[in-house]
Amino acid sequence: MTAVLGTIDLDHANEELGGILLPKAPERKEWSERYSEWFHRVISEVPIYDTRYPVKGTGIWTPFGYKLRRAVIEKIRDMLEEAGHEEVLFPLLIPDYMLGKEGEHVKDFEDEVYWVTRGGKDPLDVKLALRPTSETAIYPMFQLWINAYSDLPLKIFQIVNVFRYETKATKPMIRVREVSTFKEAHTAHASKEDAESQVEKGVEIYSRIFEGMKIPFVKSVRPEWDKFPGAEYTVAFDTILPDNKVLQVGTVHFLGQGFAKAFDIKYMKSDGGYEHVWQTCYGISERAIAALISVHGDDSGLVLPSTFAPVQAVIIPIVYKGKEEEVTNKCKEADCLLKSEGIRSVVDDRKDITPGNKYFTWELRGAPIRIEIGPRDLENSTAVLVRRDTLQKTTIQMQELVEGVHKMLKEIDFSLMERADLWFKSKLTNAEDVEGIKSKLDKVGGIVEAPWCGARGCGEEMEGKLDGRILGTPYKETHDVAGKRCANCGREASTIIRIGRSY
Amino acid sequence: MTAVLGTIDLDHANEELGGILLPKAPERKEWSERYSEWFHRVISEVPIYDTRYPVKGTGIWTPFGYKLRRAVIEKIRDMLEEAGHEEVLFPLLIPDYMLGKEGEHVKDFEDEVYWVTRGGKDPLDVKLALRPTSETAIYPMFQLWINAYSDLPLKIFQIVNVFRYETKATKPMIRVREVSTFKEAHTAHASKEDAESQVEKGVEIYSRIFEGMKIPFVKSVRPEWDKFPGAEYTVAFDTILPDNKVLQVGTVHFLGQGFAKAFDIKYMKSDGGYEHVWQTCYGISERAIAALISVHGDDSGLVLPSTFAPVQAVIIPIVYKGKEEEVTNKCKEADCLLKSEGIRSVVDDRKDITPGNKYFTWELRGAPIRIEIGPRDLENSTAVLVRRDTLQKTTIQMQELVEGVHKMLKEIDFSLMERADLWFKSKLTNAEDVEGIKSKLDKVGGIVEAPWCGARGCGEEMEGKLDGRILGTPYKETHDVAGKRCANCGREASTIIRIGRSY
Repeated sequence: MTAVLGTIDLDHANEELGGILLPKAPERKEWSERYSEWFHRVISEVPIYDTRYPVKGTGIWTPFGYKLRRAVIEKIRDMLEEAGHEEVLFPLLIPDYMLGKEGEHVKDFEDEVYWVTRGGKDPLDVKLALRPTSETAIYPMFQLWINAYSDLPLKIFQIVNVFRYETKATKPMIRVREVSTFKEAHTAHASKEDAESQVEKGVEIYSRIFEGMKIPFVKSVRPEWDKFPGAEYTVAFDTILPDNKVLQVGTVHFLGQGFAKAFDIKYMKSDGGYEHVWQTCYGISERAIAALISVHGDDSGLVLPSTFAPVQAVIIPIVYKGKEEEVTNKCKEADCLLKSEGIRSVVDDRKDITPGNKYFTWELRGAPIRIEIGPRDLENSTAVLVRRDTLQKTTIQMQELVEGVHKMLKEIDFSLMERADLWFKSKLTNAEDVEGIKSKLDKVGGIVEAPWCGARGCGEEMEGKLDGRILGTPYKETHDVAGKRCANCGREASTIIRIGRSY
Repeated sequence: MTAVLGTIDLDHANEELGGILLPKAPERKEWSERYSEWFHRVISEVPIYDTRYPVKGTGIWTPFGYKLRRAVIEKIRDMLEEAGHEEVLFPLLIPDYMLGKEGEHVKDFEDEVYWVTRGGKDPLDVKLALRPTSETAIYPMFQLWINAYSDLPLKIFQIVNVFRYETKATKPMIRVREVSTFKEAHTAHASKEDAESQVEKGVEIYSRIFEGMKIPFVKSVRPEWDKFPGAEYTVAFDTILPDNKVLQVGTVHFLGQGFAKAFDIKYMKSDGGYEHVWQTCYGISERAIAALISVHGDDSGLVLPSTFAPVQAVIIPIVYKGKEEEVTNKCKEADCLLKSEGIRSVVDDRKDITPGNKYFTWELRGAPIRIEIGPRDLENSTAVLVRRDTLQKTTIQMQELVEGVHKMLKEIDFSLMERADLWFKSKLTNAEDVEGIKSKLDKVGGIVEAPWCGARGCGEEMEGKLDGRILGTPYKETHDVAGKRCANCGREASTIIRIGRSY
């Protein structure tokens, strides 16, 4: 019998293999109920990130993890370059007097800075900080680079490691002492309006990055007491992990003229006078990769959107005695064809490993599509495609392989987005009073929205009562709070506030 | 008159511009006579690397420099991946007890290691070194990763920053305290033969990398007293800079089992017993980029081989009143066409800047081809191509633009290789005795080859007499020394030795 394009043929491999039991679509039980163990297991078994390096809060990107990291970096880089940012690379070390120039900034970072105090056997004259972020490294150079109006806007970014001497419990990729993958963009502008419009653009770029990763998010203006030190305001991207906790995955800051004044960054205006520039900066780290891993995974391991999957289609020969070479050659042909059409495919032709074990490996690694080719497929000129997310099988004609793979990748991406979105929405709730918020946080977790009077004291009081974090107010969204009362104090509400338990 | 393909039309722009004087092919006077100033001028004016960062021995890769650096990195990465190496990323910080595990290694590095001794306000229990190189960070993990024969060979690499507390005078990209671009490969093997064959492969990969960059080199086995600390032997790549000084641009080390024993890296043999692995490592840094800049440059600035040129073809509109839009549109069309054929082109359509100033900019930046399009070209459907290396002009039919650009890029690459090779050969001389070597080093510089008895004492004595560095003996080359006498002691020569004054 010739299989037909699009026929769902769940029993194909069973037939080919003589009746091995097929798993159903993988569950998400461990993923949701024991997320922390799940995350550690996945990153160490794939492996993505080896946490056994003997310095607390650091880890090693192993080859597969490095490829995943690189795919994410390339996407971020493309987006920023497209939007007119140029890549640069600044030194790691920041002299203490430079780190200290912007008062609020250094105050917030001084407890978590690593200090280099010795070179060889000599004490250093000037202590050198391992950058915790690079404002104080970059802005002294802005002072040299910016002179005229025509030097503005200046938009740069770099992708570097940064260091925080975390005293809290560390967690791989999420709370680390060496952030190995920090993309920081820094811009300078001639006017406040230009800079604020750049904040909007930064938010737009990040939105598109997370949309590309199919990671749902909300954007909130962080409260006054939780903004970036030295900024006028901070817009943050928050997502929700499988344990219902909130993870900040990106921030965009409007810096006003604070740093410009501290570092004396001025440009000459048309009237010959000088004005300090207006600045923004925005950052994203390997937390985005942790979110990518976490949001889409299931109990069998990684599930990856096609753009970020190091391997998009794994081809597994189903070999029988006497047919080994023929089947393997057909697999290599298919591989070659897919590669020529820009699909990242591999043939898993390892000997002495059963197809079942190979399935296990590639489900763990999140390859979106598995392609099985066996002797029956040779006869019928077919191949069997298996979706990673649903384990649904489809037999297609070999001549339609490329088209079929492209189509299935799109379908998977769409399904992942839908599933993630649906789950996220189920965790984004609202409540009217502190009791209600507490109950939602305890039972649903995620993010709760509630009316708020806008007073700092009231917000901080809620944080205490709820053992939660005020994530801030919605960024550029309209929420009708007419007639509503602050969830905490009962006075008239002026806005909506978001609350969650966060990393 | 319709211009003809291949016609050299030196006066074209003069006519178009109404008779501006054309420069001849750029000289190499400043380049050779005041190389150090030339290098500083080029990297700061292009700009490539900003040395004004207030930490000695560090610098900033500015956007153009970053693109150049990235092109070099991509090439190195491709070569290593093609040869089966996988990319990883290790932490920066190495605990003091790990750095100290291999005795010779730490002895050589301890005077130049930066130490992190404080986190926030607390002294650290364990001092952390900024990696001077990563053997002692990576090999403890090899110990965990390698168990069975099937885990071998293991071939990884990473591209990271490393730190040396240099007490000598620093020089941008060449002798720095933060090496921002260090590619280090590390391999482990089941046998000595496998590992030594990997040394050969490493040498082969590096040879192809430098050939691709059109950087001439010799490969020498470094003398016993100048090998990598912890290695059994070191093969080094040396090139010669315009000031006739020798620059080491890459090294490949055979590590034997020294590190394997220090870090207890073992695999299980087929007989059930355990054996320590055999190791190699090889490194290349931004010195390769410094060499790329230096070897090909001339008094007008950078001259870049096409593979590494961030811009391969710059299109400059030669506009006249009334024809601005027409000419600019034609330039944009050409740009679009070139881009679609994979050529990195840009249109320099800056206003209020004369074509002459644009020529200056792009000669400084080393764009291999300048394309001029003016009103006469519109009439004739032509464009004028100008080679960066010779400033030779060729008028071609617009319909042959893509082909013409591809052809010219190849010609330029070939010419650059030829010129560099010829120059290098003129600096690679030989002599028979210490007097002769000294005279060559004083008058010609570069590298002098001379017969040598092979005794360490004799080599070190020569270094003292010559104020030079023994670079070592030729790697895998046959030099007939029959009947020759050691340049220093007059005893029978056993080999050739290379000597130069080096960075």
